[in-house]
Amino acid sequence: MVLVMSIQANNTEIEAVQQRLNEGQLAYQRSKRGERVLFEIDAESATLTALDVTSWSGVERTIAEMPRSLVGRAFPEEHTTVTVGPVVIGDGKFVVIAGPCAVENHQQVLEIAQAIKESGAAMLRGGAYKPRTSPYSFQGLGEEALRYLVEARQATGLPIVTEVVAVEQVHRVVQYADMLQVGARNMQNYALLQAVGEQRKPVLLKRGMSATISEWLNAAEYIAAKGNSQIVLCERGIRTFSESTRNTLDLSAIPVIKARSHLPIIVDPSHASGHWHLVEPLSLAAAAVGADGLMIEVHNHPEQALSDGAQSLTPYNFTILMQKLERLLQALPSRGHDCD
Amino acid sequence: MVLVMSIQANNTEIEAVQQRLNEGQLAYQRSKRGERVLFEIDAESATLTALDVTSWSGVERTIAEMPRSLVGRAFPEEHTTVTVGPVVIGDGKFVVIAGPCAVENHQQVLEIAQAIKESGAAMLRGGAYKPRTSPYSFQGLGEEALRYLVEARQATGLPIVTEVVAVEQVHRVVQYADMLQVGARNMQNYALLQAVGEQRKPVLLKRGMSATISEWLNAAEYIAAKGNSQIVLCERGIRTFSESTRNTLDLSAIPVIKARSHLPIIVDPSHASGHWHLVEPLSLAAAAVGADGLMIEVHNHPEQALSDGAQSLTPYNFTILMQKLERLLQALPSRGHDCD
Amino acid sequence: MVLVMSIQANNTEIEAVQQRLNEGQLAYQRSKRGERVLFEIDAESATLTALDVTSWSGVERTIAEMPRSLVGRAFPEEHTTVTVGPVVIGDGKFVVIAGPCAVENHQQVLEIAQAIKESGAAMLRGGAYKPRTSPYSFQGLGEEALRYLVEARQATGLPIVTEVVAVEQVHRVVQYADMLQVGARNMQNYALLQAVGEQRKPVLLKRGMSATISEWLNAAEYIAAKGNSQIVLCERGIRTFSESTRNTLDLSAIPVIKARSHLPIIVDPSHASGHWHLVEPLSLAAAAVGADGLMIEVHNHPEQALSDGAQSLTPYNFTILMQKLERLLQALPSRGHDCD
Amino acid sequence: MVLVMSIQANNTEIEAVQQRLNEGQLAYQRSKRGERVLFEIDAESATLTALDVTSWSGVERTIAEMPRSLVGRAFPEEHTTVTVGPVVIGDGKFVVIAGPCAVENHQQVLEIAQAIKESGAAMLRGGAYKPRTSPYSFQGLGEEALRYLVEARQATGLPIVTEVVAVEQVHRVVQYADMLQVGARNMQNYALLQAVGEQRKPVLLKRGMSATISEWLNAAEYIAAKGNSQIVLCERGIRTFSESTRNTLDLSAIPVIKARSHLPIIVDPSHASGHWHLVEPLSLAAAAVGADGLMIEVHNHPEQALSDGAQSLTPYNFTILMQKLERLLQALPSRGHDCD
Repeated sequence: MVLVMSIQANNTEIEAVQQRLNEGQLAYQRSKRGERVLFEIDAESATLTALDVTSWSGVERTIAEMPRSLVGRAFPEEHTTVTVGPVVIGDGKFVVIAGPCAVENHQQVLEIAQAIKESGAAMLRGGAYKPRTSPYSFQGLGEEALRYLVEARQATGLPIVTEVVAVEQVHRVVQYADMLQVGARNMQNYALLQAVGEQRKPVLLKRGMSATISEWLNAAEYIAAKGNSQIVLCERGIRTFSESTRNTLDLSAIPVIKARSHLPIIVDPSHASGHWHLVEPLSLAAAAVGADGLMIEVHNHPEQALSDGAQSLTPYNFTILMQKLERLLQALPSRGHDCD
Repeated sequence: MVLVMSIQANNTEIEAVQQRLNEGQLAYQRSKRGERVLFEIDAESATLTALDVTSWSGVERTIAEMPRSLVGRAFPEEHTTVTVGPVVIGDGKFVVIAGPCAVENHQQVLEIAQAIKESGAAMLRGGAYKPRTSPYSFQGLGEEALRYLVEARQATGLPIVTEVVAVEQVHRVVQYADMLQVGARNMQNYALLQAVGEQRKPVLLKRGMSATISEWLNAAEYIAAKGNSQIVLCERGIRTFSESTRNTLDLSAIPVIKARSHLPIIVDPSHASGHWHLVEPLSLAAAAVGADGLMIEVHNHPEQALSDGAQSLTPYNFTILMQKLERLLQALPSRGHDCD
Repeated sequence: MVLVMSIQANNTEIEAVQQRLNEGQLAYQRSKRGERVLFEIDAESATLTALDVTSWSGVERTIAEMPRSLVGRAFPEEHTTVTVGPVVIGDGKFVVIAGPCAVENHQQVLEIAQAIKESGAAMLRGGAYKPRTSPYSFQGLGEEALRYLVEARQATGLPIVTEVVAVEQVHRVVQYADMLQVGARNMQNYALLQAVGEQRKPVLLKRGMSATISEWLNAAEYIAAKGNSQIVLCERGIRTFSESTRNTLDLSAIPVIKARSHLPIIVDPSHASGHWHLVEPLSLAAAAVGADGLMIEVHNHPEQALSDGAQSLTPYNFTILMQKLERLLQALPSRGHDCD
Repeated sequence: MVLVMSIQANNTEIEAVQQRLNEGQLAYQRSKRGERVLFEIDAESATLTALDVTSWSGVERTIAEMPRSLVGRAFPEEHTTVTVGPVVIGDGKFVVIAGPCAVENHQQVLEIAQAIKESGAAMLRGGAYKPRTSPYSFQGLGEEALRYLVEARQATGLPIVTEVVAVEQVHRVVQYADMLQVGARNMQNYALLQAVGEQRKPVLLKRGMSATISEWLNAAEYIAAKGNSQIVLCERGIRTFSESTRNTLDLSAIPVIKARSHLPIIVDPSHASGHWHLVEPLSLAAAAVGADGLMIEVHNHPEQALSDGAQSLTPYNFTILMQKLERLLQALPSRGHDCD
């Protein structure tokens, strides 16, 4: 049997439970699952019932056996909240991450960060290492970009998320970033998944271009299996025959993931659509379908952007979007908005 | 040059314009495009400017040449409203069509019709002729079903939409239905498109399983080219590699269509997802993304449905959905709700 | 129990078997499946064993129950041969059908027919009624084209196959054509499938753009269920994300179909690839993978073709292809070539 | 202008050309492209014509400017041959690589290697590091497997190819393997591509599950840009809606690649189909379509295989396949078979 502690259980309660198991001379293994402590106990159901364990302070329930998957939902109420500096993703408030596709220079990042902050964004995104289809395309400013991001964080207070594209970058990037992004192309780069799994930083895991829901959750499982369950999933469109958008945004993935996993999930309408004028309607749809947030590309001069200009919002259009989102979110049950 | 009359222009104004063209001895051709009258005039731009035609009562604008496509958007403000009995689709109010996949018996249709009416649905759907993958599956009750639908309309006032799957059915079905549906499998059945194009009944044209936006608009063009431009498009999911839903709902199609065509567009989340519990979140997303309405499968006993039970809402769940929709729509700018 | 007569069983043998069943006072139903006669007998296995039915002249075997699917393979040796005038498809000889996408004029068809005949083609293809994505594209010459095809047949002896795109054309087309083609867009146009199923002409059924193998076989079942089992399947590429070819030719469909159905299957590399220079390698691959034949677009002036010029072979390139095919087929076990 | 040396040019000829350029006081840059030496010369076309450079010994031609892509075909005759120990891929002879999906133990690899060697395989494949969808699936024996592969090479003389799934493995694997495989999941793992690009070992680059031809060639460009142009591409099926095979083998990719790149390309029908009985027909098709070889999974006990048993041939079925291939290849023009 497995004894599941409540998320709210404090250390005193957990120690007390462990003490009582010791006193009862029960063999057990203590482990952690998301934010809960679990005691896997070598005993029959009847033994635990006799001890009336569910009445113990801090105990939530008992389940028959240890859940095999770390990211799969083991009981209906299970959900994970991911904490990135002052921001919490997955607690019901809607979180908007925004920023340029690639960090281009100090001024650009700072301007964009201040603009999105004012409009209500909760986090700043910006690419330092860019995975590009051609080896001859702009590959990002690297560590220089990380320094610019940190300066923007200092100026605005916005925590930063940036992509890692190689195992050997992970050590460097964790020194700057608040959250590590694994991009669509690397969703099945298992070495990279394990490397970010070994860090104590939250991870944003994008869906692979042609990944099924199962493959995606298995990729998250690679991270969680290394001890890091602070994972946020990000739907960014799948590859289909359709040529009117860069990818086909699969919004049904959000309720499907919600039914199968306890991890939070956000939506990237910029990469999904590839056209800035589709970003607003798809963002509203993502909020309505139940996503925990958005990641949106914003550029102060989209027409000069070194990458993905066509899909970037101007700060002005981003502000309009945030106002519409705000109004929409208030109409949705049990939803608030993280930043304002 | 082409002189475009306003949608609001009345017959007197139109006749007056024609009279003045006659007086000016200008060769012209009068035609209709959606709800507007157009005069294609064999004259230079300067001639019309000299006549100051845009100041004439009822004239909206001039454009350089006749739009080649009937369903493509020729000028930004162009939009079509489709009238189905008392219901108008495309005028900003959100229209919900609901009902069973297949009409099974008199009692079933009546019960469902009354339930959805109470919850605020604007139209009743129900299959009389079912296109089924296997020739040995239930193919619908045919004309008997049409009679049940008419009875349900008489009892509730809800106009009815039903699918035609063969040219030879069209004459029969128009005698009962208020709107003719062309299903996904028949989106490129050009004989059928032409047959419904020859009718004076509005048409609901579903997107083919693997149709691009261009192919879909071309299918609508087949209908319009026969003189019937009362067409509503319906996104119902496309076929992709993803196996967690029956099809992949492509909500980006809605703003893409809005940018390219003046036709209204609704969403069918039931066929798109194949799972009743995904219908609610996808319906809310469809409203948020800018669709003009929804088509939803509702069954009073989904577990006994002759087809598509797994994706049908119960009347109770439909009511809950309608309440959430109502609240959401009020938060969206320039949107109302058609039925309550 | 079901008593299956051999394909080679002659009428005398069949009547003799029926006579003996009558004498044995056994209730039975006589039916036909492909080219075999079946007697479904209301008796236990033991009864038939006692009668030693498998020793009766013309009897091939007994099976436990009537196969539910008409096109599915009921026993390993089951295969259908389809006869189109002097040509037999599915008997091990490789059949090449060639001709223009659309019939454009008398001279064109005649020239192409004579050229392909000389190079070893067995049948002539040519579109009289063309299903086109846009209503404003060339839609074919209609009955005029059918007359040109018949003249080409008279001049060359090649039987002709042409597409029907509407139920009301079927009666007209059967008066000219030797084989009726149902195109990819109409694979689930059930009214059309039933209409060709009611004819006594062989049918060429193309795979739908996004049809699974099951859906395709079910479409064939619609035809067979109306009594016409002279069906040849035609793989013509499926719709995928890949943009380097018009469609993605799925050659694995050939051995998959061979394992699941007794129907012959050919390949159309012209529509699959959309590029004439890919037609030769894909044709050789189709022969190697086990297809029963090919359908290839040949045009005497591809650069002037009214449709699909880019994917048409010149008569010269067709001749080269036929020579390479000939050599390849001789290297494949139990394969011959139908025409020369 | 660029002066292109012939593949057959020897060092003396190359030095002589360089000497003459020096004497002519022409500024130039010497570089290598595949197996050819190129001199990019800062001079007009007329200057080179005056010098009559194309008559110089070892000079093949001049071209106007340096080809921007390393893997794109710059002139029609350009083709790369890749040398793996005694085996040459891309020189017209058909090369069959075979072996187990995963190396399981010493005995298994040795038995399979000897069996495939006898049947005519040219190389041995075997997975030491397995990229698996779930972190809890068998991930390969690692370095132990590499040692077994080396023993099998010593016993049979077959060079070995094995997959690298992480940058940090590359140094270890190059000490054992003759060719490094980059798998489908890692086709856009740019760090890994660059790492194998820095090695002096040939690379087998599989197509990503949903990679376009352009993306695939760009992935090869990442390797070549690091100085390693000994690259063989491997088509292994793409992800589509079709569910009758594990992936959809895209054989049109072979002639498309041949037209766009000078790299050799082979086919993996085992992963493409997922069913052993489809491997033979698809292998024959791959040979007919113009591939330079095959990679086939063979297992001595498929029913006990730790991975991919369903798609593995037995040694007996592999022998049958090799015999059919042999016969087929002899019928194809300018083709031989590498091993017998």
